[in-house]
This record gives sequence, C-alpha cells and structure tokens, in this order.
Amino acid sequence: MKSMELDICFSPALYPFYRKENDTVIVVDVFRASATLCAMLANGASAVITVADIEEAKQYKSRGYLVGAERNARQCDFADFGNSPYDYTREKVAGKEVVFTTTNGTRAIDAAKNAKQLFVGTFSNLEALLQKIVEVGERVVILCAGWNNRANVEDTLFGGRFAEKLSEKTTVALKSDAVKMALELWQSAKENPLEYLKNSEHYHRLIANGVESDAEYCLKENSVSIVPVYDKRSNKLIVSR
Amino acid sequence: MKSMELDICFSPALYPFYRKENDTVIVVDVFRASATLCAMLANGASAVITVADIEEAKQYKSRGYLVGAERNARQCDFADFGNSPYDYTREKVAGKEVVFTTTNGTRAIDAAKNAKQLFVGTFSNLEALLQKIVEVGERVVILCAGWNNRANVEDTLFGGRFAEKLSEKTTVALKSDAVKMALELWQSAKENPLEYLKNSEHYHRLIANGVESDAEYCLKENSVSIVPVYDKRSNKLIVSR
Repeated sequence: MKSMELDICFSPALYPFYRKENDTVIVVDVFRASATLCAMLANGASAVITVADIEEAKQYKSRGYLVGAERNARQCDFADFGNSPYDYTREKVAGKEVVFTTTNGTRAIDAAKNAKQLFVGTFSNLEALLQKIVEVGERVVILCAGWNNRANVEDTLFGGRFAEKLSEKTTVALKSDAVKMALELWQSAKENPLEYLKNSEHYHRLIANGVESDAEYCLKENSVSIVPVYDKRSNKLIVSR
Repeated sequence: MKSMELDICFSPALYPFYRKENDTVIVVDVFRASATLCAMLANGASAVITVADIEEAKQYKSRGYLVGAERNARQCDFADFGNSPYDYTREKVAGKEVVFTTTNGTRAIDAAKNAKQLFVGTFSNLEALLQKIVEVGERVVILCAGWNNRANVEDTLFGGRFAEKLSEKTTVALKSDAVKMALELWQSAKENPLEYLKNSEHYHRLIANGVESDAEYCLKENSVSIVPVYDKRSNKLIVSR
C-alpha cells in the first residue's frame, strides 16, 4: 500500500493556498456539473470543452457544436442542454464533442488546470475515481466548486465521503482541518444525504427552478464507471484511460 | 426582537464573496489573537494598533511603543510580547497603546476594515459580544482568520457556538451553508471543545512551541466583558462603548 495525503479546498478562490507541487486535483460540483460531465462522457461524448463565459459558448454554438450552458441553475436559452445529467443521452452525445459552461464547475476546473493531473469526481463515479486515486499515490486535493466562491454543504459532504472511502482502501494522511470538518459533516449526513441536503442553499435553488429531481441522481453512488480527466494537450476533458 | 442574519466566512481571502453593504463583521482568531486582543484591552490598554508586517512593528518599537509580535506561533525576538493572552498584564499595558501583529489575526482585520462596524470576538468575550450584536440587529458576518487563508477548525467552531447562542437570544436567519457547517461542527465538539481541538492543525503548532497551555484560556467563555471595536478615525482597536 502506498502512503498518500488528502486535502480539501472549500472554494476555487482558496486553491492558491492549498496548491502544492505535483498535486492531483479532483474538481467536485455535486449539484450538478460533476455528475453531468460524468454522464456525457459515460454516454459516449468524445470530449468536453469547458468554457468560462457565455459569449464563448455562443460562438461554439454558431460553429455547429452541441452546447450545454447553465447560469444560476437554469439552462441558457441558446443552448442545446442545461446542467441536468438526464439531458445528455447517448442518442444525443455519442461520438460528439460537447461545449459546456456552468456557474461554478467550469470556474473550478479553470482554477486548477495547471495541476499535475485534474480529475472530475462526484458520487456517481466514486468507485472509479477511488481506483484512479489509489494508483496516483501522492498528494490529492479535492477542490470544491462551491457557489460563487462560497463554501457549500454538498461539495464538502462529498469530500468527507471520499476521505472515508479512501482511508478504507489505502494509507492516507488526513491531517488537514478541512478534511476533519468534511469527515465530521459526512458522519452527520451519511444516513440520508438527500434529506440532509434538503436544508442546503443550493437545494432551494434546484427547487426554485423545478430541477430538484436531479438531486437524487447526483447523490447516487457508482452509476457510471468513468473518470473525466483534463487533457492538457487538447484543453478538453476526456475519459481517463 | 429584531430580525437579523448571520453568515460565516472561513477565510480572509473569501471575504469579498461574503461582503454585503452595511455588514457588521466579527473577526475571530481563536488561537490566539482574538483572546489576546481582548486581554490587552480588558487590562486597560488604551488602544491597539494592528499592523500587517514585521518591519512596521519594528519601527514602532524603535519609537518607544510596546510591541506584541508573533509569527508561526512564536514571539518575534525584537518584541515585548508574543501572542499569549497571559503576556499582557495590567501592570504592563494599563494606560498604554500597544502595537500588535500576528500571522493571521491582523490580516483578517485588514480584510474587513471597511465594514460598517468591525468587532473582535472569541469565547473569552462571547456574552459581551452577543449583547453588542443583538443591538446591531442587521447582517453580521463572522470572519474566521484561518491559517494562511486556509479554513481551520477552531474559528469555525466559534462560529457555530456564536450562531447557537445568538439564535437563543434573538430571531436570526441562519440560511448560509457555512453557518450550517459550523453549527454541525459545534454540535460534535461542544461536550469538550478542548479535547476536540487537540486533533487540530493549530493545536499541534501550539504544542510544538510549548504554548498549548494558552488553549484552555482561549476556549473559556466570558473571562472578559469588553468588545474590541475598530475605530476608523484613529485606525486603532479600542473598547466598544
């Protein structure tokens, strides 16, 4: 068994204070970008181009790309898809490149693009992600997408769940205060994470936009078996081999 | 009873994303700057000049000021005091202005100087602080000093304790995810906060520097009855009237 270290960063704006050389970063945006990215690639999308702003997404759209775009939990008018994992069916995305922009998820990916490796993780690909990370065997930082750079409960909960599972599989140092806070939160929520999160800020946003049915999908473990990885050469997310 | 709102910001670097107009900010640095600042002013110091860097503190020293200076949990050689609340006895500080710089506490004060009001709070002045805040009756943000802009357990715990007590005294909205996380953490720790924190990053730093005996003082509630407030006119911390 390798020995490794795990840390959790609650906001993209804090990443500069968590970054170390040779880090592997896991970007998590539980509601909903991480699950949606996993769904696209699991359903056969050849790659995902994440872009930070709406104008850039519109330009891709005018050039014939499939575009997923969300702001404040709503699908943008011009886009083919929003930020629901159910939008991206195999019929629609298999073999195609998808352009994707969301309120928080793409910002988090941008913040950590220069890490040694960048994976996208969430409950839906937990087991596949754990296998990758055990292979990595070095320092790993879970980077929470948060909400407009504010900490949120759901991404922190995933951090706690991941820390729990990883420490079952390998020897991992969990010294960071943020990891301890996340583990504590997960202990309180684990009996029923969906119920627990019904009191969170973002769940109320999902309800306000009539998309709270996505929440159950986003919290279900191991519905896909792929891990999105950021390919530095092409500047796209692809399935990690 | 007034209706008010409480939020918690885990790091000075995140404060721009928590700030709203007319906020009252409570800067908390549990280990140990908040308790030390409270001790100085409770023991009769006429004011505290907080400075961000060591060079500026040295200049004050050369002009005859009493200077407290700490970096990484150690007293700086040139200084009269470190960051222990026990250093600042009435005999030494009564009637005098003290210049003070610490690793994280002064940075947090700097970050929020432009708030409508800025108080310094911690366990040692909890009840006095609660009274002030109930009078304020508007939006209040607890700004955690953290450690080099990273989130820490002890400041978050204080946020949870403060939220619990404030909601006993008045009607206060606790909608923020960060507040929920802090309350949850406090529930886990409240039976014995000192024992709970022995597993935290900063407690290990206190031990490494032989000053862990300060921890008990820093967690004891209501040992002083003053609240430090930032006076914009003089750029100093004074006792709030």
